[in-house]
Amino acid sequence: MTIVTLTTDFGWSDGYVGIMKGVILGIAPGTELVDLSHDITPQDVQQASFVLSRAAPYFPEGTVHLAVVDPGVGSDRRPLLIQTNRAAYVGPDNGILTHSLSGEGAQAFELDNPAYWLPAISRTFHGRDIFAPVAAHLVRGVPAGAMGRLIDDPVRLAGPAPVRHPDGHIDGHLVHVDRFGNLISDIPAAWAGPGGGICRVAGQEIAGPSPSYAGVARGQLVALIGSGNTLEIAVRDGSAARRLGIERGADVAFWPAKQPQGGGAGSSS
Amino acid sequence: MTIVTLTTDFGWSDGYVGIMKGVILGIAPGTELVDLSHDITPQDVQQASFVLSRAAPYFPEGTVHLAVVDPGVGSDRRPLLIQTNRAAYVGPDNGILTHSLSGEGAQAFELDNPAYWLPAISRTFHGRDIFAPVAAHLVRGVPAGAMGRLIDDPVRLAGPAPVRHPDGHIDGHLVHVDRFGNLISDIPAAWAGPGGGICRVAGQEIAGPSPSYAGVARGQLVALIGSGNTLEIAVRDGSAARRLGIERGADVAFWPAKQPQGGGAGSSS
Amino acid sequence: MTIVTLTTDFGWSDGYVGIMKGVILGIAPGTELVDLSHDITPQDVQQASFVLSRAAPYFPEGTVHLAVVDPGVGSDRRPLLIQTNRAAYVGPDNGILTHSLSGEGAQAFELDNPAYWLPAISRTFHGRDIFAPVAAHLVRGVPAGAMGRLIDDPVRLAGPAPVRHPDGHIDGHLVHVDRFGNLISDIPAAWAGPGGGICRVAGQEIAGPSPSYAGVARGQLVALIGSGNTLEIAVRDGSAARRLGIERGADVAFWPAKQPQGGGAGSSS
Repeated sequence: MTIVTLTTDFGWSDGYVGIMKGVILGIAPGTELVDLSHDITPQDVQQASFVLSRAAPYFPEGTVHLAVVDPGVGSDRRPLLIQTNRAAYVGPDNGILTHSLSGEGAQAFELDNPAYWLPAISRTFHGRDIFAPVAAHLVRGVPAGAMGRLIDDPVRLAGPAPVRHPDGHIDGHLVHVDRFGNLISDIPAAWAGPGGGICRVAGQEIAGPSPSYAGVARGQLVALIGSGNTLEIAVRDGSAARRLGIERGADVAFWPAKQPQGGGAGSSS
Repeated sequence: MTIVTLTTDFGWSDGYVGIMKGVILGIAPGTELVDLSHDITPQDVQQASFVLSRAAPYFPEGTVHLAVVDPGVGSDRRPLLIQTNRAAYVGPDNGILTHSLSGEGAQAFELDNPAYWLPAISRTFHGRDIFAPVAAHLVRGVPAGAMGRLIDDPVRLAGPAPVRHPDGHIDGHLVHVDRFGNLISDIPAAWAGPGGGICRVAGQEIAGPSPSYAGVARGQLVALIGSGNTLEIAVRDGSAARRLGIERGADVAFWPAKQPQGGGAGSSS
Repeated sequence: MTIVTLTTDFGWSDGYVGIMKGVILGIAPGTELVDLSHDITPQDVQQASFVLSRAAPYFPEGTVHLAVVDPGVGSDRRPLLIQTNRAAYVGPDNGILTHSLSGEGAQAFELDNPAYWLPAISRTFHGRDIFAPVAAHLVRGVPAGAMGRLIDDPVRLAGPAPVRHPDGHIDGHLVHVDRFGNLISDIPAAWAGPGGGICRVAGQEIAGPSPSYAGVARGQLVALIGSGNTLEIAVRDGSAARRLGIERGADVAFWPAKQPQGGGAGSSS
């Protein structure tokens, strides 16, 4: 049984997601469908790309990931399929599949074979008319090369990368704000540990990383290593996003504590 | 593997949808369950009916559609089953299944055989006690006639239909506002094209239909043919509903462009 | 095919629920996954416990219920597995599984065998790293005793119980406010009927229980027996929570009507 995951900005109220599922199950009965998120902010390709990139590694080999945040639908933006050694990704060529391009064996295909689409193609809903059918045909074993032609210039999201300076301090960024108001940075855990240090964000200084949310008092800011293995800022039983009033893209800096000479480092938090 | 779709105003917070699924899977293990929408505005039968009518054609033959927006639960409103040549529909007899009545071979049954319900029937949750079990028994192959009696007077939602005047101009209505704030009218694509014209809504005039959202500048109003093959008004990367401050039911008019004499028509957009 | 239900406060926007499903399907392919709720108020263990307790009885034998509202993640709170004769429950030991402890044959296990977890355990997402894998291994038939050790002191949520006084009047509480604004009390139907009486909440007196929402005029308060077989206060086609401005935990009282001497009781509503 093959899995198809779905990530869109379609919300849950209009039945758009259900329609894509109907199309998939009509072509590939018995497909296991898993929703990643349909509450992506409308047109926010970067958010969808982040959510998919964090989730995809936890799915078994052979999973097909369908991602449709598609403000350019109906224009000349290309429909895209990325095939890696481990999984396949289907969506518009607007950067939403960026992370998959660094997967082992990644190849990009422009979908150009209408034989694998619905018979009628609307101007506004290629999730239904092109992407869902292609995902379903992948489940049925149709090779990527039959549905599209190899290209070498898929669109990639460009974003600032975190920088580690010679003095050890790190300049990073908020890459996601989650449902809890947790602020997820792009600073890798390996850079921030194991000796701890000081995290600076929105004018606040927070010692960390702490071992858990519960390591500080309720309502206090806490810096810790999040589930994606990067530095994260939270408020215990509260929302750091609301507390600090900041959004994705904001700067986050980290100064590691001075390491003791020639010995193991303890946690500073 | 048979599919059951679910459309309700139950939301996602209380577990009501999950309970219906538990009941279905207890009776018909292995059923493929697909959510269409559970974010229907509470008690909004018309919205649920629209969402279901747009989604149902995309599901394979034999699908069972369960729809529960049921302000009359516990009163004398009848429980209903519509069987067509292609699919079955289960829900309260309040108009929510109106569109299915025009399906080929449609027959309406009042559900009157408690042998196919849960043993105890609550006053407030027939989705769990009657409709989910009936849907599951349909999946198991129980014929509609065993679960109910034929009736010829199911409730139908009455709404204004779009009108095409002798001079060619069309008076239509907004029938749905979607998550993106797109305004979906009941004016068929065939009436609005292929030569284009002027759409009038909320005092605004919009030339169209345009080929895509991306065919206008960001933040601009655009009229196009939506995925349900009717005229739709949108704002590129924005919300037309917020921009125009209008709601479902509002008037939408369309004046086709004058056609050139004896030739093919180009798009005016 | 075994069912795993999921109840969390993760919301739908970040992909956290999808990640847990990916982990489960990687270990136990073909598992039937059913969402109960992911819109539990963040950190609201009591709400999650209520939703799960109301839904679980409607699932077939052998179902595994996964519940993750986990403000203590990463601290020393224990990971828990409850096995009853009918079902299994997996989640943090913070009271979220309280109701399952009264299930027939209930045994509590502290999960202490990392062989059944993901290889790397994060500080913030045990839903992914511990609870989802354990649920999947249960589906595969691993016995509870292999994954944890029996304990006799799982955390139980303490809450006030409804009291029936010698004069027959009942002091109860609001235990849940649902999506519709319906106010669900802990007063059992058996105590409130069959003769009806007067319900008092937030300074209002409401005769009841009425047979249905539709038994009163639109916009009127109505007391009835809800789907969980307890007394519920609603507003027909409206929200009782908004009308009365009260929240979970508020007092609800009920005075049964005087019973007629030596005869059957009619409904007073």
